[in-house]
Amino acid sequence: MRHATAIAPRTVGNVAAGFDMLGHALEGPGDQVTAVRNASGQVRVLSIEGADTALPTEAQRNTAGRAVQHLLASCPPGTGFDLRIHKGIAMGSGMGGSAASATAAVVAAAATLDEAPGMDTLYAAAVAGESAATGAAHGDNVAPSLLGGLVIAPSTGTPRRVPVPAWLHAAVVRPHFPLETRRSREVLQAPYPLHDFVLQSEALALLLMGCMQDDAACIHRGLRDVLVEPRRAPLIPGFAAVKAAALQAHALGASISGGGPSVFAWFESRAAAERGATAMQAAFSAAGHGSESVVSPVNAPGARVLA
Amino acid sequence: MRHATAIAPRTVGNVAAGFDMLGHALEGPGDQVTAVRNASGQVRVLSIEGADTALPTEAQRNTAGRAVQHLLASCPPGTGFDLRIHKGIAMGSGMGGSAASATAAVVAAAATLDEAPGMDTLYAAAVAGESAATGAAHGDNVAPSLLGGLVIAPSTGTPRRVPVPAWLHAAVVRPHFPLETRRSREVLQAPYPLHDFVLQSEALALLLMGCMQDDAACIHRGLRDVLVEPRRAPLIPGFAAVKAAALQAHALGASISGGGPSVFAWFESRAAAERGATAMQAAFSAAGHGSESVVSPVNAPGARVLA
Repeated sequence: MRHATAIAPRTVGNVAAGFDMLGHALEGPGDQVTAVRNASGQVRVLSIEGADTALPTEAQRNTAGRAVQHLLASCPPGTGFDLRIHKGIAMGSGMGGSAASATAAVVAAAATLDEAPGMDTLYAAAVAGESAATGAAHGDNVAPSLLGGLVIAPSTGTPRRVPVPAWLHAAVVRPHFPLETRRSREVLQAPYPLHDFVLQSEALALLLMGCMQDDAACIHRGLRDVLVEPRRAPLIPGFAAVKAAALQAHALGASISGGGPSVFAWFESRAAAERGATAMQAAFSAAGHGSESVVSPVNAPGARVLA
Repeated sequence: MRHATAIAPRTVGNVAAGFDMLGHALEGPGDQVTAVRNASGQVRVLSIEGADTALPTEAQRNTAGRAVQHLLASCPPGTGFDLRIHKGIAMGSGMGGSAASATAAVVAAAATLDEAPGMDTLYAAAVAGESAATGAAHGDNVAPSLLGGLVIAPSTGTPRRVPVPAWLHAAVVRPHFPLETRRSREVLQAPYPLHDFVLQSEALALLLMGCMQDDAACIHRGLRDVLVEPRRAPLIPGFAAVKAAALQAHALGASISGGGPSVFAWFESRAAAERGATAMQAAFSAAGHGSESVVSPVNAPGARVLA
């Protein structure tokens, strides 16, 4: 019997034009999972601490539990795990709490194995785990939580890091009202005109070029979302004012983090991101909502084994 | 009174996941336009040579004519141009013939001016010109015809070159049947599910990453089109067999060039692209269609002033 503990960070998913396929990590607290390997052939969630809402402990319905269930297929026959989860990330914040638990769980469980599964196996298992919470399998929170930095999260195969400038910082502001991921998906159901896809593709391409070529003006051209943000913005009271405040504070761009309600913006320095966060919080406040903020390099660390 | 002649190359538009916003140049023949500057305040198309179908000489309806009409807004008051067009690119081939005429025209006209307009002005004028033929304003043929290489073609602002590996070569095979750009657009009208767009975005991101990081495996992951190709393929008899032949010949990927009927594929060397072109032509032939092929580095030169 062996055990390991891993921590996985918060993330910004749906990075503007990168809906469901581009996310980045955030420095600071994360979700922590201890995995104890046994020969039960089963996955059990023994405890969940630090959760601000009730989370299911049935493994199949828990993101960490379901992720490790998927990992069993890559373990020796008969392998089982007991999991203890410590939530450091608020649920429903739009900062990838579900994904971080799934990610920490697979990283911890894998660390107990004699033969470590490949990155694509860990990624697929964590994405499958996250779907226990969201009802949809997409990896734009899991991939950066796993690898750190800005990451392309494909439907299949290995996620891929995008090199980003060291000066690039994010401000993420989380208003004190919840928004269910499922609800925030419902508004996206109606079909899309092809022209909007083209505009979104341009933005994605310029964003990636700007990041890889250390070009703030190109990031500014690309950091926008014409497809999804217009449909979700009405679910977030004050969104337009918060975005305007970020841009006024010289953000390179701003949009919704994940399914919301958090709003993120990118800046050319940590100091600019801190000023931006203050302005964005003030705008939420003027709309009647308290909030909290995170400032982080976009190139923040990913999951790691603690012990 | 001053004159200049410019040539602009063939291009592959709609590069797989880069529908309407990513194209690359092809080495070899191009469209040539001579512009004579005068004080008429008007644009006239005096002659069109080498066209394999009848083209309008009314400036407003001619791609070169309309492009230069748009350029007049950036010229001194009263400026006019007489244009002589020599087509080197077959119309309806899916290799950007309309765009090349518009591009050569603006480059030639601009070369006669004392103060050269900026790249964004030339680009916008050439895109507006191309719309005379296609009925839609999109720059994925104009941008690479203007700049050369692989180019992101945004709706507004300056197009941007994507660095590509020197070894990357394209094979483009043009079957001997025409396909009207307008018809090839009609099949795209029905709306698209969001999930297909996410898959397409992943592909685009991986394609750009692979090009910029000199990574053939990543280009292979990204060089596909799940959105548009399935709708257009039925308009091109033999397409499935031609694509399969390219992949069998170790193409990194293959799809429709522009609105078709030409099919392009990318390879890891010129020799591989030449073998691929032969295999693709054989597949068209087996489907009952003659064809011709072009092999070119993806990083082919753009438009240039000849005299």
